[in-house]
Amino acid sequence: MASHTAVGQRVTRIDAADRVTGRARYADDFRLPGMLYGKLLLSPLPHARIRRIDTSRAERLAGVKAVITAQDAPEHRFGGLIKDRLIFAREKVRYAGEPIAAVAAVDEATAEEAIHLIAVEYEELPVILDPQKAAAPDALLVHEEWETYLADPDLPRRGNICNGGEVRFGDVEQGFREADLIVEERYETQMAHQAYIEPHAAMAAVDPSGKITVWSTTQGQFPLRDALAEIFALPHTRIKVIGTEIGGGFGGKIAPTIEPVCILLSQKTGRPVKITMDREEDFLDTTPRRPCIVELKTGVKRDGTLLAREARIYFATGAYAIGRYNFAGNVCRRLSGPYYIPNVHFSGYSVYTNQQPCGAFRAPGSPQVTFACESHMESIAAHLGMDPIQLRKKNALRKGQQTAIGSLDDSADLVALIDRAVEESGWYSKPLAPNQGRGIACSFWTSSAQAGSNTVKLNQDGTVAVTTGSIDLTGTHTTLAQIVSEEVGVDLQQVSVTTADTDVAPVAPVSAGSNITRSMGASVKLAAETLRQKLLELAADHLEANVHDLEIRKGEVYVKGVPERGVSFKTLYNLAATSRGGPPVVTASTTPQAPTVNFTIQVATVEVDPETGAVKVLDLVVVQDVGFAINPLSVQGQMEGGATQGLGYGLMEQMIFLNGKLSNPHLLDYKIPSALDVPPIKTVMVEEPASRSPYGAKGVGEPPIVATAAALANAIYQATGVRISSLPLTPEKILQALQARKE
Amino acid sequence: MASHTAVGQRVTRIDAADRVTGRARYADDFRLPGMLYGKLLLSPLPHARIRRIDTSRAERLAGVKAVITAQDAPEHRFGGLIKDRLIFAREKVRYAGEPIAAVAAVDEATAEEAIHLIAVEYEELPVILDPQKAAAPDALLVHEEWETYLADPDLPRRGNICNGGEVRFGDVEQGFREADLIVEERYETQMAHQAYIEPHAAMAAVDPSGKITVWSTTQGQFPLRDALAEIFALPHTRIKVIGTEIGGGFGGKIAPTIEPVCILLSQKTGRPVKITMDREEDFLDTTPRRPCIVELKTGVKRDGTLLAREARIYFATGAYAIGRYNFAGNVCRRLSGPYYIPNVHFSGYSVYTNQQPCGAFRAPGSPQVTFACESHMESIAAHLGMDPIQLRKKNALRKGQQTAIGSLDDSADLVALIDRAVEESGWYSKPLAPNQGRGIACSFWTSSAQAGSNTVKLNQDGTVAVTTGSIDLTGTHTTLAQIVSEEVGVDLQQVSVTTADTDVAPVAPVSAGSNITRSMGASVKLAAETLRQKLLELAADHLEANVHDLEIRKGEVYVKGVPERGVSFKTLYNLAATSRGGPPVVTASTTPQAPTVNFTIQVATVEVDPETGAVKVLDLVVVQDVGFAINPLSVQGQMEGGATQGLGYGLMEQMIFLNGKLSNPHLLDYKIPSALDVPPIKTVMVEEPASRSPYGAKGVGEPPIVATAAALANAIYQATGVRISSLPLTPEKILQALQARKE
Repeated sequence: MASHTAVGQRVTRIDAADRVTGRARYADDFRLPGMLYGKLLLSPLPHARIRRIDTSRAERLAGVKAVITAQDAPEHRFGGLIKDRLIFAREKVRYAGEPIAAVAAVDEATAEEAIHLIAVEYEELPVILDPQKAAAPDALLVHEEWETYLADPDLPRRGNICNGGEVRFGDVEQGFREADLIVEERYETQMAHQAYIEPHAAMAAVDPSGKITVWSTTQGQFPLRDALAEIFALPHTRIKVIGTEIGGGFGGKIAPTIEPVCILLSQKTGRPVKITMDREEDFLDTTPRRPCIVELKTGVKRDGTLLAREARIYFATGAYAIGRYNFAGNVCRRLSGPYYIPNVHFSGYSVYTNQQPCGAFRAPGSPQVTFACESHMESIAAHLGMDPIQLRKKNALRKGQQTAIGSLDDSADLVALIDRAVEESGWYSKPLAPNQGRGIACSFWTSSAQAGSNTVKLNQDGTVAVTTGSIDLTGTHTTLAQIVSEEVGVDLQQVSVTTADTDVAPVAPVSAGSNITRSMGASVKLAAETLRQKLLELAADHLEANVHDLEIRKGEVYVKGVPERGVSFKTLYNLAATSRGGPPVVTASTTPQAPTVNFTIQVATVEVDPETGAVKVLDLVVVQDVGFAINPLSVQGQMEGGATQGLGYGLMEQMIFLNGKLSNPHLLDYKIPSALDVPPIKTVMVEEPASRSPYGAKGVGEPPIVATAAALANAIYQATGVRISSLPLTPEKILQALQARKE
Repeated sequence: MASHTAVGQRVTRIDAADRVTGRARYADDFRLPGMLYGKLLLSPLPHARIRRIDTSRAERLAGVKAVITAQDAPEHRFGGLIKDRLIFAREKVRYAGEPIAAVAAVDEATAEEAIHLIAVEYEELPVILDPQKAAAPDALLVHEEWETYLADPDLPRRGNICNGGEVRFGDVEQGFREADLIVEERYETQMAHQAYIEPHAAMAAVDPSGKITVWSTTQGQFPLRDALAEIFALPHTRIKVIGTEIGGGFGGKIAPTIEPVCILLSQKTGRPVKITMDREEDFLDTTPRRPCIVELKTGVKRDGTLLAREARIYFATGAYAIGRYNFAGNVCRRLSGPYYIPNVHFSGYSVYTNQQPCGAFRAPGSPQVTFACESHMESIAAHLGMDPIQLRKKNALRKGQQTAIGSLDDSADLVALIDRAVEESGWYSKPLAPNQGRGIACSFWTSSAQAGSNTVKLNQDGTVAVTTGSIDLTGTHTTLAQIVSEEVGVDLQQVSVTTADTDVAPVAPVSAGSNITRSMGASVKLAAETLRQKLLELAADHLEANVHDLEIRKGEVYVKGVPERGVSFKTLYNLAATSRGGPPVVTASTTPQAPTVNFTIQVATVEVDPETGAVKVLDLVVVQDVGFAINPLSVQGQMEGGATQGLGYGLMEQMIFLNGKLSNPHLLDYKIPSALDVPPIKTVMVEEPASRSPYGAKGVGEPPIVATAAALANAIYQATGVRISSLPLTPEKILQALQARKE
């Protein structure tokens, strides 16, 4: 540790100046000669049969270059495991916001006008939004015909259930029989939007040979290329994706949205076409966090030992399935929380509803599960009359215990983390005023490492350049630069990191799942180590010394202890380029690694106004096992940002549907935390290194959002004695609960 | 040979559709938000002291954002061995066209107007243009102070001589004493412009952190970055060069021209600045072919055996030296031509004159030397009354002979090539009408291989992408794609080749010196072979077979003879990415290789109108040792294009100076060949493979320009009996010579 020169340092993001001065170019900043503006016609109805589409008036409008509908689009379904998505609705619309048609015109106003000139006749159909009701065998079907799709044969297809699974462990009936107390509860969470500052925007240009170039605000250039290649049935060499600077993603910029439409319009017009969604369109037709219903039944001994749990989770997945994996089947495995429960039976269902297709949002599924499970733990403690800290510590997962969520070998000790959170929050020491309360929530997340590749090259002047295909969502380019600085032995200022497009960059994974530092960090470290070794060997020859007698400092190789016997990287470049193997450039690839489980504890202190139900968050403590903080400044930013987003999710954010239609698709009525809503956040990084990870780093972006809502719910309970069982924890609900208790 | 699948095939350029449909984006096609238009004030005088520059009126003009002069520019001198160049003239101007100031304005008209508002007071100075006179010890000095510069200590600095050298071999006096005949002649060649279809254009943007991005129509991104880093004293990580599509270079787009000015204007205004030269500016301030004077004295035996030669060559290098090598010292070694002469004394001088700095132009120095030497050979044959073919064959260089130009080990047999040219042209068999003549010229060129790197990656779908830093000037990307197709085993349509910018691409050499196929071809071949080996090893494991029992065809690996036991590259990608080393991507580098000498013979048949002196070229035969033609279609294009450009150089192209000022800086009065001027060209490729070169390929771009002017001069001599000793071979000169002979 003491020997690190670059990693472990608090470093300002290397792209900070570009970002704060407005020079960073986002997707909407790109303009090409002859470019047209595209616009979507979105369904105003949540469920309807399309009787007729008349585009003739729109086509006749001066300045309109193309109007397209489902007839112009490939018939391939796409989008996930079930491939039930189409670019434009055919025959039916299944959510308010589903694209029906699109136009390309010479300016935005003309495109907008043309959209209004498209006449669509609908036959309205009944709507279903509640996932539990939609899961019933006799429910109205969102996709009457979907058994005809190319679906995964392993899927438990049933009515509207599009994926799901079960976990059984021990003997849950026996567990309940042995229990002194059984607590049964039901929790609900809302649909929430990622509300990134930059809405979706993309541009496509098709060249005369048919090759497609797409500019997009995407979290993953290569997965987007993959998806577009599938939709348009083209080889990867015929599609280039340029991931632009990204103004927030949080999981909401993974699936293709407007890119296929831009391509179709560009193919039809022969000109570049750009679509930038306005905020309303973005709310209506992107992929928010899945709302869910969780039913929990837990059997516990009088001393607090958890004995058995039966639980069900119903996710509303919206009208189409996003993602290629069994989401609900996977998430239901987490219904134990970070505790050991010997007997469990969990089931999970993703259920079609007449809403926009839901997708990934920072730690998908876990804030929902954690809100339910950690509220439930607090209820159990209350029923038992037990200290909620002691209940958690008693049942905390320990190394060596069998878990459904992965190995704990690399995890920090959960009891120690809880103690740390107790200490840092003054749980027992800082007195609370009336109407104040303190709540804790424990959570875990797993951070994976995907396959990755990076290229590290020595420039002619001895500086170092990294070429990567990954999108810098959270400061990961700075992290990669630190790793290269550390391993090659040059100052951080001498390292550049650049995202290149899919034609040019080595393949990179999507920037999601908190994986980039582990995935790309591993491959860039391997490349940097290889480059260092090359330089040492060149220098050994040049200095007539043994490699093991050499050391590197600031772009120079010296004989240890003889600083005057050295050679610069610049000279080594020339040596290599003229006669020793050519310019030193290394591309290295690494494979996926098993996920690590990392625990995060949050403690919230709140004050509730009994007259209004308003919640003021007084402070928030986040204790997180980060493995190793390569850039502590950046890790701190992730912890603060995650907790802030968790606070929004817990207290205020909610997509509200009236008659099946989203009623608040703007940031004025969809409130997210402002600086005034954010309390002091104390971030505590615990470093228990992960194996098979650069310097032991763990994924840190997602964990801090997971526990916040639950900690807030528990704090409100401690302050008021009322249990709010649905998110968000609004003043209305609190006031209603306080009044109900009075009555 | 029979086993090749992709190399050796006639293949249409992979970028053909982009180029012919106008989609290819040249430097002037780039526009950035807020971009300003830059314009240069060029000196109207060839030599003058600058008394005063008043920019105040220009600065006050509405829409002008910056006016800069030498005061705003770094004082570093740059540009070559002697580093005598500045961005703007200080105190003195030394050629008509030298930049004095520049403006950036909101549009081109305003920039143009502002230039006219800059008032400069000059004190005119005498002018020197003749390099032989300028080389005299008492000549007027172009740089009175240049001994104070950072110059190469090995340079023979003397007056205006800025580089040069000598070659002595054998005993030239003794040789002359033994000669039966001594022929002494003097030849002169003109200044000629590359006249690429796209004038110089560049844009610079400086970001808030000070990082510079330059878009430029350059032949070499990395050398340009190197030069700009030197001028602005910045590390390479702080300058990014984006080489755009290029509309011809021919050596004229190597040195920085307007790029430093764009950078200065962008630094001053904080906005992107683009400069696109108009044709006149391009003629006045870029780097044309050096004019020269050659004095030759050759001693020969009656049987035609060459015994001794004394020769001097004076190049006018213009007012500043371009290039980092001893140009004249190097070129004078070629004054033997492709012949064995046992006793020689050659000297060469680059001499400052009051003209634009000269630079590289397709086979720098060689068309000049070849015009002189091959005209001289014809004169010697005439003096001896000897068949000029026999004279050449008698003295032709042979393998094993010591030469000043490099090893002949890899060269085709020169005598055989001459015989081939004789046969193909019908030298002895096709009769000539009156006023018709046939002329031959023999030439050589050396093609080198520089250090290069390329990255070859397997895409997720099994197609293959090449990332390169080299600029495709002549179809070399298609050649690289053929090599990868051949070595990896996929169809050419499954391979993409992309030039990435200097931040992102592996380092690449300048596309000049006919080196790319040898340099980048070697490194891409090494990368492709390594990728192939990886794929074979993956497949061997997967198929449970021995690597040696496998073969690859069209993106599939099979067990030989068992086509049903195969695995696709797509499957191998997945295998590698999930568990076997990560995504298959290979970067490979190679070192420079010794140059190969390749001979080219040209035969021209002409008809001269005795009334007007007009020359009609009836046909042209080009016999060239190409080593191995990876893409014969492309090689043929180079041979035809080179001979056509040689024809323009021989017959019509000339930059004409009146009072030291270029009088014909437009394509209307600087005539280059049109389709109507070009005769049928018969191209004959001889394939004598080069060692240490992919498939034996030799550089083919430069050789075909070298001999054309000499062949034409000799054909005119055969047709008319008059010897024109200066280029171009205009009707005026021919008519004058015919009339002089009559008198």
